[in-house]
Amino acid sequence: MTYFEILSESDVARVHEATLHVMETVGLDMLYPPARDLLSRAGAKVDGHRVFFPQKLVETLIAKPPARFRLHARNPENDVMVGGDHSLFLPANCPPFVSDLDHGRRYGTLADFENFVKLTGHSNHLDMSSNILIEPSDIPIAQRNVKMLFATMKYTDKCFMGGAMGRAGAEETMNMVARLFGIDKANLPEKARVISIPCSLTPLKYDQSMLECLIGYAQAGQPVIVNSLGIAGATAPVTLAGTLVVENAEILAGIVLTQLIREGTPVVYGGASTCADMRTGALAVGAPEMALNNIMTAQMARFYNLPSRAVGALTEAKQVGNQSAYESMMNLTSAVSCGLNMVLHAAGALESINCMSYEKFVIDDEMCGMARRIKQGVTVTPETLGIDAIGQVGPGGHYLASPHTFRHFKTEFFRPRLSDRSGYEKWAKSDDRDLAVKANNTWKKIVQEYIPPELPPAIEKDLDAYVRSI
Amino acid sequence: MTYFEILSESDVARVHEATLHVMETVGLDMLYPPARDLLSRAGAKVDGHRVFFPQKLVETLIAKPPARFRLHARNPENDVMVGGDHSLFLPANCPPFVSDLDHGRRYGTLADFENFVKLTGHSNHLDMSSNILIEPSDIPIAQRNVKMLFATMKYTDKCFMGGAMGRAGAEETMNMVARLFGIDKANLPEKARVISIPCSLTPLKYDQSMLECLIGYAQAGQPVIVNSLGIAGATAPVTLAGTLVVENAEILAGIVLTQLIREGTPVVYGGASTCADMRTGALAVGAPEMALNNIMTAQMARFYNLPSRAVGALTEAKQVGNQSAYESMMNLTSAVSCGLNMVLHAAGALESINCMSYEKFVIDDEMCGMARRIKQGVTVTPETLGIDAIGQVGPGGHYLASPHTFRHFKTEFFRPRLSDRSGYEKWAKSDDRDLAVKANNTWKKIVQEYIPPELPPAIEKDLDAYVRSI
Repeated sequence: MTYFEILSESDVARVHEATLHVMETVGLDMLYPPARDLLSRAGAKVDGHRVFFPQKLVETLIAKPPARFRLHARNPENDVMVGGDHSLFLPANCPPFVSDLDHGRRYGTLADFENFVKLTGHSNHLDMSSNILIEPSDIPIAQRNVKMLFATMKYTDKCFMGGAMGRAGAEETMNMVARLFGIDKANLPEKARVISIPCSLTPLKYDQSMLECLIGYAQAGQPVIVNSLGIAGATAPVTLAGTLVVENAEILAGIVLTQLIREGTPVVYGGASTCADMRTGALAVGAPEMALNNIMTAQMARFYNLPSRAVGALTEAKQVGNQSAYESMMNLTSAVSCGLNMVLHAAGALESINCMSYEKFVIDDEMCGMARRIKQGVTVTPETLGIDAIGQVGPGGHYLASPHTFRHFKTEFFRPRLSDRSGYEKWAKSDDRDLAVKANNTWKKIVQEYIPPELPPAIEKDLDAYVRSI
Repeated sequence: MTYFEILSESDVARVHEATLHVMETVGLDMLYPPARDLLSRAGAKVDGHRVFFPQKLVETLIAKPPARFRLHARNPENDVMVGGDHSLFLPANCPPFVSDLDHGRRYGTLADFENFVKLTGHSNHLDMSSNILIEPSDIPIAQRNVKMLFATMKYTDKCFMGGAMGRAGAEETMNMVARLFGIDKANLPEKARVISIPCSLTPLKYDQSMLECLIGYAQAGQPVIVNSLGIAGATAPVTLAGTLVVENAEILAGIVLTQLIREGTPVVYGGASTCADMRTGALAVGAPEMALNNIMTAQMARFYNLPSRAVGALTEAKQVGNQSAYESMMNLTSAVSCGLNMVLHAAGALESINCMSYEKFVIDDEMCGMARRIKQGVTVTPETLGIDAIGQVGPGGHYLASPHTFRHFKTEFFRPRLSDRSGYEKWAKSDDRDLAVKANNTWKKIVQEYIPPELPPAIEKDLDAYVRSI
């Protein structure tokens, strides 16, 4: 498989060189003294909040993390490989609002969160869960992280993302992951079992909370997606190449720090920049510039021999329909064709990730299945070339009754759950003509019938006691 | 730009070898004696309708057509380059039905046809017109080709496709193209001015009508898209690799014939195969297998150093909405990421091309703009890398007032016409919340305000007289 690339090799090299120049001469503001101290001891020049990164330091340390790693699930069948030729789909992360056809749009609750964990657990196409499937507004802020983690651990045995908010977020996550796997916290670094997503503050800044998260995970030997989200024309240069330089500088700075904490800590190169809509100054995640940034992010990550993360089914649409579908599918298709490794926000997000839609979740899940079928490619062997069958059927015949057809028809094609392929007449008489209504029936049935994977009672009790202590 | 490829080099070579084997040992039925005679004289074994193609003959002749060519429009500014790194978008071709929000679904008329020529002429993203934008059911069959061509010539000065139905279709097209360009018919071979799309009858068969078309265009030195549409599991092997072998055999057979007629005639390698829905046996053009065939078609064409043609905004959906949008966008995005040269059906088609929708036409046009923005890629120069601007703004600043932003914001980003990027509150109060309604208003305004390009009165009179003579 050869991936879609829009930058030439020399373009990539020029972005890299420009980035090193910016890191050394413009520097980044790192708003957390322990991070600055670490960097200073490693040879960086520090002036107030500002850290100037020597090229040599950057080039040495970004070569340390592995090109791919296994993320362990409590059910080993659900382990995922991060990097290489794998494209993992994860649901949306961080929307405060939730919506469905029955109740409209509202703030999300823990009950909604649990429903989305179940939908993620049930999906054949989502490989792992994200962290904040929705913000549970009915839970006090201080308890949200542990309650969301507990719900995730109870209702799915797939891999998941952990809390990213500050030192507490990291510590709570490590305490719960150790309990879930029944291991001593000191032994966490043996295996990667949870991943988080500390984000820079574009342009060229990291706040204390995100640096604490990054340091906390790296100390426990757990991977992080070092992430940047620049808005071209607002928080980053209006040119996509310039935005890539800023994004790249922020990601590399974060990676350098992880390697100073614990050399070899797995990291994911995470870019989620896109353009501003120049009429409003707001982020435009459904824009083709988002897809372009996906592609460039995958290319830069490959250049550094690191796994990549960008975005999936994102849109500016406020409701499920034409716009939500075409913007989301543009991002998903581009994500697999450029060989992106982690596709975050691959299901559910409306309104530039402000709202999680139940119906969109299952529609996007269908799109993930389609995107994955494309990514699987086509197998060429003497059997699949089918020369014998072609000779037997001959010109003018048909393959409906060919033994070759019976051998392969169950596995060769993607089978849609929602998409309607009936003819017009049949469709026109059907009660099932509105895909959003079909999606509404589908998610309710899944949530209702969902059987959570078994969690040993002793572990559940241990986790429960911990959650109550927060 | 590196294109998305799902076949390895050795996969492509194996498909090629399997194809030559099938062409030589299984053969193709060519249901037109002059075509068989030509092939026989060139060394092919002929037995009844069946023609067995010697490998040497195929390999010699498929090397003759140019890798790219210019298709001339009557307005030279609208010439298009077919091949190389160009991706051309063309509207849907051949739907019998038409629909809009005001009048629902019905058989198309010449008035509808004219409207779609105007929408094509107005589009910034559609590079040329197709042939049968809709079947004009109110026109006697014998007059349809000339009436459609006349409408196309009157209402747009972009390039277009000509009639594909038999000897008459080719002859009428050549007579009208010569009149449009004011040249002698004998001089047509000097330049490519019209292109058609003769299709095989999968599996491994060509009927008389399509062979007459192919021969008629080649004799006039005009290019053809030699096209195959296999339905994997029904008219072609259920495995996509096997379907590709059948598709490839049909396309190569057609190309061989064009080169026997007139060596060097430009051709386009056209593949539009996809899977059957195994529950109904029907074509599934919105399936991921369609996107996979797009990608393989582009790869095989590059292997033969020929321009490629596959499909754009296709769907099984019966109405404009979620399914039509995501299936169409999947095909469009995959078409540009695999470097396809001609993207037919890039606007308007519903119901597996059975229906042309006015609203979908303008929605797809927006998607074509997005796909094209992706295809344009990102320019990396010292100016676009923006190092000076990054230094001036520094960490924590913003780029809204940067001179660098003012230099580039007008040209860097795609500007949507239909997609809504406002915030939820503004959108919720707006009257403009339904994209299909917005599309309805948009196409009506375009058709109403369309000013056709000037056609010299003498040429129009000449064409009119010819059309009346048919």
